[in-house]
Amino acid sequence: MSVTFPIGFRAAAGAAGIKPSGKPDLCLITRDGPDSPGSGSAAVFTRNQILGAPVIVGKRNRARLLRGEIGPARAFVINAGNSNAATGDRGLHDADACMAAVGALLSCPPTAVFPSSTGVIGRVLPVDKILAKLSDLAAQLSRGPVADAAAAAAIMTTDLVPKTAQAERVIAGHLVRVGAIAKGSGMIAPRLDSATTTQAKGTMLAFITTDAAIASNDLQAALDEVASLSFDRISVDNHPSCSDTVAVLASGLAQAVKGAGRGLTAMEPLQRGTKDFAAFVAILAQVCESLADQIVVDGEGATRTFRVEVAGADSRDSAERLAREIINSPLVKCAIHGRDPNWGRIVTAAGNAGVPLDAAKMSLTIGPVEVYKAGLPIMDALKDPRLADAMAAKRVECKLVVGLGPASATMIGCDLSAQYVSINADYTT
Amino acid sequence: MSVTFPIGFRAAAGAAGIKPSGKPDLCLITRDGPDSPGSGSAAVFTRNQILGAPVIVGKRNRARLLRGEIGPARAFVINAGNSNAATGDRGLHDADACMAAVGALLSCPPTAVFPSSTGVIGRVLPVDKILAKLSDLAAQLSRGPVADAAAAAAIMTTDLVPKTAQAERVIAGHLVRVGAIAKGSGMIAPRLDSATTTQAKGTMLAFITTDAAIASNDLQAALDEVASLSFDRISVDNHPSCSDTVAVLASGLAQAVKGAGRGLTAMEPLQRGTKDFAAFVAILAQVCESLADQIVVDGEGATRTFRVEVAGADSRDSAERLAREIINSPLVKCAIHGRDPNWGRIVTAAGNAGVPLDAAKMSLTIGPVEVYKAGLPIMDALKDPRLADAMAAKRVECKLVVGLGPASATMIGCDLSAQYVSINADYTT
Repeated sequence: MSVTFPIGFRAAAGAAGIKPSGKPDLCLITRDGPDSPGSGSAAVFTRNQILGAPVIVGKRNRARLLRGEIGPARAFVINAGNSNAATGDRGLHDADACMAAVGALLSCPPTAVFPSSTGVIGRVLPVDKILAKLSDLAAQLSRGPVADAAAAAAIMTTDLVPKTAQAERVIAGHLVRVGAIAKGSGMIAPRLDSATTTQAKGTMLAFITTDAAIASNDLQAALDEVASLSFDRISVDNHPSCSDTVAVLASGLAQAVKGAGRGLTAMEPLQRGTKDFAAFVAILAQVCESLADQIVVDGEGATRTFRVEVAGADSRDSAERLAREIINSPLVKCAIHGRDPNWGRIVTAAGNAGVPLDAAKMSLTIGPVEVYKAGLPIMDALKDPRLADAMAAKRVECKLVVGLGPASATMIGCDLSAQYVSINADYTT
Repeated sequence: MSVTFPIGFRAAAGAAGIKPSGKPDLCLITRDGPDSPGSGSAAVFTRNQILGAPVIVGKRNRARLLRGEIGPARAFVINAGNSNAATGDRGLHDADACMAAVGALLSCPPTAVFPSSTGVIGRVLPVDKILAKLSDLAAQLSRGPVADAAAAAAIMTTDLVPKTAQAERVIAGHLVRVGAIAKGSGMIAPRLDSATTTQAKGTMLAFITTDAAIASNDLQAALDEVASLSFDRISVDNHPSCSDTVAVLASGLAQAVKGAGRGLTAMEPLQRGTKDFAAFVAILAQVCESLADQIVVDGEGATRTFRVEVAGADSRDSAERLAREIINSPLVKCAIHGRDPNWGRIVTAAGNAGVPLDAAKMSLTIGPVEVYKAGLPIMDALKDPRLADAMAAKRVECKLVVGLGPASATMIGCDLSAQYVSINADYTT
């Protein structure tokens, strides 16, 4: 299950006719019950400077929510097939129309509706088709595996498989559940902002629900922390989208665990700095890491993934830049595709990260085999059968130690295949 | 012709056995005559933090030359098939051995020999093979089309065609010639340093000769200026090499033009700030722009090139970053390959350049057709047959206006094809 795994959520999805294929392309996910101190919402968005209309709306509402001017979101309305991006004021107006329609159907303010769109850029959103389908979906909202599967399928674009994740854990005497769906296969290199810091880059979308009780500002803090360690750690094509969005709704309806000595009381909202908050962050991270991994495994044309750990950097930022430069090099990606232990491409990619390096302090290990040490090639390594095995693995792993400090970072990419080219050479035409 | 087109240069090339294919892989280019005030040399190198041994040696000797501690270079010794990079002190020792051998053959100091290597990274240079071949080459040094063609062929790696350029112009009463060879097809996104500023990124190599009289410091200034406007403006794969090098030798032997009223006197060295210097920079630029263009046209797997002009940026740096982000996006490159006018990829790529943008001020034109204006799609544009023609052109051209200032920049990239993947998935194995 996914988004209706936590208590208090329903979902429905169907075909509004946005995708030319006629496949499902519209999804509605809603939270039940009145707002409460524990029914927060939070979101992180792309840092691309060109923003899809739903992202502009979402960022604006996030700011208003955190200032207390509006209440939390209680519904996601998500379409695939059209990103409503590069559409100017018309796009904003169209997003507003979808929100208003859902608000009317759910008897909630339009600002409590969180819109999201993915698909072709620069085409006017077919709002009429969406509005015509929404009342069907509102009438079909339900819980369970069928609704969850429909939701996950309706948000796919070039994805080959739907992506879902769930986790649960007893926190503060209550069984807290997290459920989620995600999409993304191309234009994937999310670098998400947070509500409190500034910084972002793919279209990947993830919609998360939880029955934890947690207010919006604490939920935002949890999401900020988790997104930077999950979605921000993957790249398919080093081209962040104008629409990348990760959003979460909390119902606060987690059930008390019998025998936990707290009776059947409602869960108290989780607060930053507490052990219970950390426990929630841990299961949220588990879900987000799973989704991020599923996205890169299903990267356009990908046949295998490539995990790079950089250690010994002078700062985490340096470590991240090094790891990111390596997984994004087309030459490295082709070598991974060809199972070619051409590690010089890895080392020189690192050299392009804009981080000062000292070759004499560097070493590189692929799988269990050290191939480069203290700036020198280990020639026998190329004959080691374990190196060929490591390069042929479904998940190729390498570790670059730069010897300049204590910081480390990991990024996960994928190989570059001829299939990638054919998928992307003919997307809109 | 190429490197022996200017007066005072000879070349020879052959197979030393470095390339497993047995193709030519060693090239020697020399300047005749004694050093004079007009026989300068200059070079620019990759800004990759991991440097091939010849680049380390070359940077060191450039600094010594500009401090007056050593004389100008008078010979290039270039091998393909092995980059002598990621080879530590052993690599430096091997480069020194090649320089010493050439110095002995030419009766010049080893520091007057400029070494360069391209090919697989992380393999010990087969110095014995090189040394065994050098005396043959020294005995065969000659001028003319045959020597020039041999030189251009010997430095190729995955290049499909040799690259040469030449230009001539009467400057200060003398017929000044510039000739050059270059190589490069993959690991191409040169960002070259200069001797005076700090900054760099592919293996592209270019070796230029001229019979202009110009001292090393003035020649370096000319090369710094020209490289930033030619080689730095191209990218095949956004992976600058550890070996990128552009170097130039001047003989000072340009012949006086009859009737120019100066008799048969030797050319006086050109000096910065003069009209004659500017005239020399112009023909040097003509040669470098031609070579840079030839490299991107012959980019690995490339079927067409893609030229992006960014205008209206707040600074040249912003304009360059925007143009670079666009030509390096794999999604944009695939769209070019597929002749797909999916311009949303271009606009969102720009959004990832780390440059603040205002969509409402932006417009994009592909060929003669404006597709995006003031943040809005021009829907009729997609039906314009001129757009399809522009996308199908051998040289696709687009212009992005960002409306934030007066600065502009141009970058030239190429499409991403399935052939690119097959070339690079199986390079060393």
